[in-house]
Amino acid sequence: MPTDFDATRALFDLPERVIYLDGNSLGPLPRAAAARVAHAMTEEWGKMVITGWNRAGWMAMPSRIGDRIGRLIGAEPGHVVLGDTLSIKVYQALASALEMVPDRRVILSDTGNFPTDLYMAEGLCRTLGQGHELRTVAPEDVLEAIDGSVAVLMLTEVDYRTGRRHDMAALTRRAHEAGALTVWDLAHSAGAFAVDVAGTGADFAVGCTYKYLNSGPGGPAFIYVAPRHADRARPALSGWLGHEEPFAFDLAYRPARGVERMRVGTPPVLQMAALDAALDVWEGVDMADLRARSLELQDRFIEGVEAACPALTLATPRDPARRGSQVSFRHAEGYAIMQALIAHGVIGDFRAPDILRFGFTPLYLRPVDVDKAVAVLAEVMDSRAWDRAEYRTRARVT
Amino acid sequence: MPTDFDATRALFDLPERVIYLDGNSLGPLPRAAAARVAHAMTEEWGKMVITGWNRAGWMAMPSRIGDRIGRLIGAEPGHVVLGDTLSIKVYQALASALEMVPDRRVILSDTGNFPTDLYMAEGLCRTLGQGHELRTVAPEDVLEAIDGSVAVLMLTEVDYRTGRRHDMAALTRRAHEAGALTVWDLAHSAGAFAVDVAGTGADFAVGCTYKYLNSGPGGPAFIYVAPRHADRARPALSGWLGHEEPFAFDLAYRPARGVERMRVGTPPVLQMAALDAALDVWEGVDMADLRARSLELQDRFIEGVEAACPALTLATPRDPARRGSQVSFRHAEGYAIMQALIAHGVIGDFRAPDILRFGFTPLYLRPVDVDKAVAVLAEVMDSRAWDRAEYRTRARVT
Repeated sequence: MPTDFDATRALFDLPERVIYLDGNSLGPLPRAAAARVAHAMTEEWGKMVITGWNRAGWMAMPSRIGDRIGRLIGAEPGHVVLGDTLSIKVYQALASALEMVPDRRVILSDTGNFPTDLYMAEGLCRTLGQGHELRTVAPEDVLEAIDGSVAVLMLTEVDYRTGRRHDMAALTRRAHEAGALTVWDLAHSAGAFAVDVAGTGADFAVGCTYKYLNSGPGGPAFIYVAPRHADRARPALSGWLGHEEPFAFDLAYRPARGVERMRVGTPPVLQMAALDAALDVWEGVDMADLRARSLELQDRFIEGVEAACPALTLATPRDPARRGSQVSFRHAEGYAIMQALIAHGVIGDFRAPDILRFGFTPLYLRPVDVDKAVAVLAEVMDSRAWDRAEYRTRARVT
Repeated sequence: MPTDFDATRALFDLPERVIYLDGNSLGPLPRAAAARVAHAMTEEWGKMVITGWNRAGWMAMPSRIGDRIGRLIGAEPGHVVLGDTLSIKVYQALASALEMVPDRRVILSDTGNFPTDLYMAEGLCRTLGQGHELRTVAPEDVLEAIDGSVAVLMLTEVDYRTGRRHDMAALTRRAHEAGALTVWDLAHSAGAFAVDVAGTGADFAVGCTYKYLNSGPGGPAFIYVAPRHADRARPALSGWLGHEEPFAFDLAYRPARGVERMRVGTPPVLQMAALDAALDVWEGVDMADLRARSLELQDRFIEGVEAACPALTLATPRDPARRGSQVSFRHAEGYAIMQALIAHGVIGDFRAPDILRFGFTPLYLRPVDVDKAVAVLAEVMDSRAWDRAEYRTRARVT
């Protein structure tokens, strides 16, 4: 049975009178999430208090819900765990991976990677103090740059600005041939299309849940460690909930089995409850249908904008295989244009220096929404509605 | 006007038919929290979606709410920030502190410290790979052990098992005289009594919010960096939200001013909303009244238990100045006794190997609750109600 996207759309509480094309930054509220969190607060926290850790299953949430995400990214069961933020998970994955390639000192990444990945790597290199180096090349030069000096290839599969998608299988293969390990950031992949961490041979993968997985602002991150590494990866952030026996309160650290060792501190129960509810939406979704719908929406948008707004330049690859689930256009006045567009009821976002970014999330967007968005964008461009002081004033845009 | 503890009690949604003496592990639900979180979900996330980061003030919450906690721990305004878990904050504080004392290699702590602090230190030492060493001594030997080899003194002010309170001012003074820096873990201090991080000269302090501050399961941690260090502490976990200009998306990391650099990734908005509501309870509370009431409750409990339960041995110091806001007793069958006690409606907790732990939280506990708890405990002991297989079976206790 094909996926019923009208049915999935009905599961969201979408903002009124706007077309929301920013689910690649923060997904909208799943209807079930508010009730689920309210339940966690009043029926669990309120009534069970401390006993909720066992009775309400809070302690098991990072693994149980981790597995639900695992199914969307092609992970083996029991190899994904929730917690912390994406930045922290990047640090953990990278620290573990570097230690497994002790004779090399280079982390290879690209200049299109999300800055926090690069910042965390930079911080880790300095903390390691052993001459590790973060080397960045242009996204299109990564494959060529993988050589015998590279310890870890650290990439975000889909570029947060351009929407360009790396070939995860080919890059992982090349990395392995060169004796390197891989850390894949799936921030713009998980829930955007079917990922296959097991099939591509990824060593470590991390991602966030508040974009295409709709867990809400500040929802927890996740980490995947390939089964072949899971029992030997050293957890650099060796917190008590990654201990083999946390409630023995031993003075010495012993890592838990498998990916559980990547747990650190007390997990955020309210945010996890929202995520759990948000993942229910995926139960009837076929990932091939999702991808087909995503590309249909993207193509419709590209075609519409290119026809109606000649001043905007497509920044996303035309080849569907090289795209995630977002489309970006460039314009020197991108900031003001996006502000005007938002004021006219179409929410996308701006990424410096000149990127207008639009997320196409099949769970709740329809072709008719794309058509409306194109029409509003065309009107903003034609009328130069963006050319006003109020839209040029830079506030902090997230 | 003296603090009205009947009024503060009325602000909590306490579990029915139980006496809750475990607020030192997980505080109960503040009545306002459920509505506040519901508002954050439906009115903010639901209606504002991405624009909530600015319009609903989400991005500023870690500093704004951090300052509210700062007032309870005697911090200078603008020097506390929320985020992550306590384990992560310990790592950050310790990494920054160690770098400021580059010629020494010893972290001094005590065997009564909460394990995760020791584990995180152990992991950091190994990541640093420069021969750093975690040295632990018995709590009573710490003062003597501070010598010229110590880089950082890392202590939890109140022992999670015994409730013994360190002399933060004296230990900090001795550490400074010896040329060391201090990292204080306030997990069992913040909200338990007035802390004075500025007055005692603490260099770094960290803490959690789900105990005496009642933020709910998995609420965010906090970190304080003394003003004299705040602009030179290197953030080892250099995430994008600790960048000077996160939304410039620079490729290179530049730390934000002051304690803001200790922010890492996207903060947990729902958990922060619960914490914000929980902190409203403190508005009318005088910290001297809080301490007096805490000691009154503790003394009443100690006196009652010692009179009625001779088989239990006090593990907490008798001297009020050396106590936090919990009282612990030892018994070889502590686990089974606590299980039986919980089954009889008095919730405390057990900490291996033999500690029965009871938290006395003046915001919602009354002398009459203490009397009832003593009576139930006496009955459990007298009748040997704990001596049943069902209470001896070890489940995971948090």
